[in-house]
Amino acid sequence: MSRHDNVRPIAWTREGLRLLDQRRLPHEETHVVVRSAAETADAIRAMVVRGAPAIGIAAAFGMVLAVRELAGAAVAEWESALAPQRQRLAAARPTAVNLSWALARMTRRMRAFPGGDAQAWALAEAQRIHAEDVRDNRRMGELGAALIAGADSVLTHCNAGSLATGGFGTALGVVRACAEAGRAVQVFADETRPWLQGSRLTAWELARDGIAVTLIADAAAAAAMRAGKVQAVLVGADRIASNGDVANKIGTYALAIAARRHDVPFIVVAPTSTVDEQAATGADIPIEQRDPSEVLSLAGQTLSVAGAGAWNPVFDVTPASLVDALVTEKGVVRKPDGAALEALLRGPG
Amino acid sequence: MSRHDNVRPIAWTREGLRLLDQRRLPHEETHVVVRSAAETADAIRAMVVRGAPAIGIAAAFGMVLAVRELAGAAVAEWESALAPQRQRLAAARPTAVNLSWALARMTRRMRAFPGGDAQAWALAEAQRIHAEDVRDNRRMGELGAALIAGADSVLTHCNAGSLATGGFGTALGVVRACAEAGRAVQVFADETRPWLQGSRLTAWELARDGIAVTLIADAAAAAAMRAGKVQAVLVGADRIASNGDVANKIGTYALAIAARRHDVPFIVVAPTSTVDEQAATGADIPIEQRDPSEVLSLAGQTLSVAGAGAWNPVFDVTPASLVDALVTEKGVVRKPDGAALEALLRGPG
Repeated sequence: MSRHDNVRPIAWTREGLRLLDQRRLPHEETHVVVRSAAETADAIRAMVVRGAPAIGIAAAFGMVLAVRELAGAAVAEWESALAPQRQRLAAARPTAVNLSWALARMTRRMRAFPGGDAQAWALAEAQRIHAEDVRDNRRMGELGAALIAGADSVLTHCNAGSLATGGFGTALGVVRACAEAGRAVQVFADETRPWLQGSRLTAWELARDGIAVTLIADAAAAAAMRAGKVQAVLVGADRIASNGDVANKIGTYALAIAARRHDVPFIVVAPTSTVDEQAATGADIPIEQRDPSEVLSLAGQTLSVAGAGAWNPVFDVTPASLVDALVTEKGVVRKPDGAALEALLRGPG
Repeated sequence: MSRHDNVRPIAWTREGLRLLDQRRLPHEETHVVVRSAAETADAIRAMVVRGAPAIGIAAAFGMVLAVRELAGAAVAEWESALAPQRQRLAAARPTAVNLSWALARMTRRMRAFPGGDAQAWALAEAQRIHAEDVRDNRRMGELGAALIAGADSVLTHCNAGSLATGGFGTALGVVRACAEAGRAVQVFADETRPWLQGSRLTAWELARDGIAVTLIADAAAAAAMRAGKVQAVLVGADRIASNGDVANKIGTYALAIAARRHDVPFIVVAPTSTVDEQAATGADIPIEQRDPSEVLSLAGQTLSVAGAGAWNPVFDVTPASLVDALVTEKGVVRKPDGAALEALLRGPG
């Protein structure tokens, strides 16, 4: 942590997994402690914790809780014993692939359990996943900061910050890396309807970390680019197909289209755990649909009329052809495509 | 009025000008009666009445109230006597040119005052402006309906409906004309942050008129186009430069960029009173900035944190090159440019 890095949404405690309740930010800074894998899955579904890397980390700790729930039982084969809770966690949200990535890693870990304290064995791996995420974010921050060397103002969407990760953030990690290097980079943040991750989360964590933030209506982003207010667009990702197509918060695609028109670099910052090699293209990525009420109301207030419906996809897919650079912990891929992504994943880490 | 056309936001009464209070829709259907030109200007500024054509009509009636305020005084020269109130009305909102168009028309009317009942003389002209607007909207509705002959689903932004006009609407007038002809055209409506004209006004008037409406977050529009959910984008306009550039609600520009990418026709529906021949290009159109609190809060609820700022331009400019067709009461201009617009304005009406 540093002057520009003070937020950590996930912490393991003796009681259980302590989650900063992102539904209540920015008005209340409260925590939820989940004590079982089922409670962890519920917390992910309800968006107490959200953001692809953070969901993965929470699920890893959820597996530790699943191991704890089995403690005392004579577990002959951990993988099958954990399967129901693993499935429950995997089903919590469909789009972020970091979730199944973390669950697979925890399963491999338990397959290799040498005997002794099962919970401690599982916990060490979850804590490693958490620590690696923060380390990788710092690495992506440096790489991204070099990539936008001339920029003093960037646009972001949703929240790809400390709150969406183990800490430091992906897209906002780049901004933090600039700040830590003494470069003041201001952030134009899309408010990001319907869940308002921009207004509620990005603004909260940047204000807290002393980084200047200006909110805009999502629909104002293209006008901001046209007015020359930003020199780069930085976003995270929930899943990247093996051809480089990027699933991210609804609205990312529109930003990418507008960025291309204005020759503003469109940069995706995401760890390689976000790449789904099983998905050939973006068409293979499941897109979560959430309740229409998220669009039709806000903080309990009805915004519209009884007769109106709503369409509420949570993510969209930006084709690789609109991505100018993908920043990962293994390096930067300019103009990502299948070959470049494969070289990145297979190459020396 | 008809089965699909039941909303009228402006009515002249013996007491004064009766305005449906659009700030309180859709939850409350209340009216404000303004009794002076100053009150009319305040109502326009506060967005009791909004929408470029509706603002023009309200201002015309505001001039009738100005005439009434002078009643009894020996007015030698109406134009100079009315100048202060005309200026006050003109300054109420800067972008919609229909405002100054209507004020100029009322001024010409009073210049020609033959003596007798000044208020009746002024009122006849304001009522003509109102009636012509509804008539012109019906004409644009027919022209637009023919233009989107194959469509059964359209996307719209903000509110370009009965509430934004004397009645029937511009963009939504096209949908109403389809409905009156027995063609069911459903509307995908951007919720239109920050003021939520889509959720609050478009949904309200369409639901009331029995036309199917589905709300989406503004950021979901490009995904809706990609998913093939709409076959046309229909929007209104607040001011059109003489080269065909269109100022309209913030977010219109992003829609036009996305529509072009998806080969979805981007159609502007607006009366010729929206054309500003003094503005050579969109760069000459003043863009209103409103208070950051509109982005930072909603219905009195703070959405973000104390340290966050906001940038809140109310309109943006879509270049003529992205407009596939402009539908006016004088006819349809495909691929509008300066020459085509001039031919339209000078040609036989």
